Amino acid sequence: MAFHFEILVKDPMTQARLGRVQTRHGSFSTPAFLPVGTQGTVKSLTPEELVEMGVEAILGNTYHLYLRPGHETIGRLGGLHPFIHWGKSILTDSGGYQIFSLGDLRKISEEGVTFQSHLDGSLHFLSPEGVVGIQRTLGSDIAMVLDECIPYPSTYEYVKSSTSRTTRWAEKSLRARQEGDPALFAIVQGGMYPDLREESASDLARMDFQGFAIGGLSVGEPKSVMLAILQGTLPLLPERNPRYLMGVGTPEDILDAVVLGVDFFDCVLPTRNARNGTLFTSHGKLSIKQTQYAEDKNPLDEQCSCYTCRHYSRAYLRHLYMAKEILSSRLNTIHNLFYYMNFMKEIREVIQKVKLLDFHKEHQTHPCRPEMDETLQCHPA
Amino acid sequence: MAFHFEILVKDPMTQARLGRVQTRHGSFSTPAFLPVGTQGTVKSLTPEELVEMGVEAILGNTYHLYLRPGHETIGRLGGLHPFIHWGKSILTDSGGYQIFSLGDLRKISEEGVTFQSHLDGSLHFLSPEGVVGIQRTLGSDIAMVLDECIPYPSTYEYVKSSTSRTTRWAEKSLRARQEGDPALFAIVQGGMYPDLREESASDLARMDFQGFAIGGLSVGEPKSVMLAILQGTLPLLPERNPRYLMGVGTPEDILDAVVLGVDFFDCVLPTRNARNGTLFTSHGKLSIKQTQYAEDKNPLDEQCSCYTCRHYSRAYLRHLYMAKEILSSRLNTIHNLFYYMNFMKEIREVIQKVKLLDFHKEHQTHPCRPEMDETLQCHPA
Repeated sequence: MAFHFEILVKDPMTQARLGRVQTRHGSFSTPAFLPVGTQGTVKSLTPEELVEMGVEAILGNTYHLYLRPGHETIGRLGGLHPFIHWGKSILTDSGGYQIFSLGDLRKISEEGVTFQSHLDGSLHFLSPEGVVGIQRTLGSDIAMVLDECIPYPSTYEYVKSSTSRTTRWAEKSLRARQEGDPALFAIVQGGMYPDLREESASDLARMDFQGFAIGGLSVGEPKSVMLAILQGTLPLLPERNPRYLMGVGTPEDILDAVVLGVDFFDCVLPTRNARNGTLFTSHGKLSIKQTQYAEDKNPLDEQCSCYTCRHYSRAYLRHLYMAKEILSSRLNTIHNLFYYMNFMKEIREVIQKVKLLDFHKEHQTHPCRPEMDETLQCHPA
Repeated sequence: MAFHFEILVKDPMTQARLGRVQTRHGSFSTPAFLPVGTQGTVKSLTPEELVEMGVEAILGNTYHLYLRPGHETIGRLGGLHPFIHWGKSILTDSGGYQIFSLGDLRKISEEGVTFQSHLDGSLHFLSPEGVVGIQRTLGSDIAMVLDECIPYPSTYEYVKSSTSRTTRWAEKSLRARQEGDPALFAIVQGGMYPDLREESASDLARMDFQGFAIGGLSVGEPKSVMLAILQGTLPLLPERNPRYLMGVGTPEDILDAVVLGVDFFDCVLPTRNARNGTLFTSHGKLSIKQTQYAEDKNPLDEQCSCYTCRHYSRAYLRHLYMAKEILSSRLNTIHNLFYYMNFMKEIREVIQKVKLLDFHKEHQTHPCRPEMDETLQCHPA
């Protein structure tokens, strides 16, 4: 069987689950965080570095790869895995998020979406069926259906009509599936309207998808709204399938969502923050450009055992950042992704030990929390 | 003894020597190529990656490190070696080349040079004695004297007066030396005037330096002029000391200079070219951005065993370059530096086997040669 999801432990006190996903390219433990490899590379790192820090699955962006170098090119080169020298699992998004972020450069119809490339202004049309085909050509392990990621705020009427179209697109995507295709996940929409979210989830839950994603969250709404939507939606999805919260988020958001029953996450936050000099540590966030670190001999986080913390001082990391050196992005990305992978490992361990609720409570007062931006948008551009 | 140079084999047919340099941070074989770590990092790579490809010594730029983060800061952090996590040898230049490249932003006197920082316009004064002190604070293994790198072309009168000042600065530098200091190398100047080059070399050869560099070449003069100057100058330098040709160059220039008796080289060419997508291969130079590589499954060079050639296609490297991905600079730099380190290893092997002359003749018709730019300037900015 190409795709299989097994729930190993169900937390008795929360909705959290410890699981294992099997794909054509190996297996990975859930709850899982998938680093974002937008253009066929997790920015600044090699596959070996990702594996060393425990990454078992990454995300690729269909929109970006479709435009450059082109899915047909990647297909002729044997698919995304050999092209980028990555032997483990790959989830590809549908491109919907990026296309719908283009604003005036795209036009939507029942058949699909016409848009202009952000690279050269060229005109493209993508249908739900076409998007399934692109991800087939890429050789993805887990493919996403085309959906409209609805802006926040939007009117009830707009969200209703958009969400029902996304559901019709999901049906078309299922019908376009062929033997040997990647696993296919549906995407729940419905904006911030609980009844539309419920309708979307119930409609999609009746269809034969391998997994279900929650899209259209972390788009600027208050954190409390996001959690309420999740709390209302997740129980409507089939328990035996994995649930994927797209584009989320901070470690605290991830932990909150795990408690509500989410299994996968992806977000550019650890990698983008790293390149901008913002580092996650056990004492909270740290902005490496600050003058106070100019002669600081300490590692970023004395509790961290990543390559960066084992060999480099804050002073050197500040110097590399100020001098705009490429090594700055590398060392910072290694640290932040290591932090995230370690955080997910801790979550899986506390679920195993039936201590998730204690861990969650401790993190309510985690030093990161007050500094986190509630309306943070962490999707790739 | 902190610094020692031993000649192991003298080629009977040419002036080439196989040698070994001992510093406080280990030893390295000569002829050697030192990758340039301008701002305390060989751009895009970690020290472990350099060691893996056989790098035993790197160059640091005093001008850049003096301005940012400042030599005093590096000194308080234990010196350049722990600061940048490099345990092997470091040669630092004097900053002369960079300062004299500033044009109108610098003013020269008998006592030294006043210049404006390219970073913030702040005013600085450096004397020959001060430059020795800065390199002491950095904890360098091999330090260079302050010199004026004379522009090409310059009048005989200007070159004469500048060169004699550089020689007086060399005497001052020697007098400023303290117990436990780095090894100190003088720099031969004299522009493109054979008699001034001879005078400079003879004057410096009488002083107690551990090594001698040839500066002010590869500044835009024809290749034939550079070789003639080297041929006239090198025999005037003490045979028992290492000779260092600064800022050179292409593999072919390096080979020509080895035949004339040069022991060390440094150049930004392999690293800068890598970032610009120009790769050295056994078939000549390759510009990875070319459309012909868009679906090319082959490695950059099927004869190369570097990490990049073992795992990635030209198609992927072209994609990373076109998408301006950080990994592009990394993979290309690994390849080009591996090519250079391998080339130096080959040179040392053919000297050992007394086959340098054959190797040199083969390289007269090397595919790289006709493409190489004769007036290439490969100093860091």
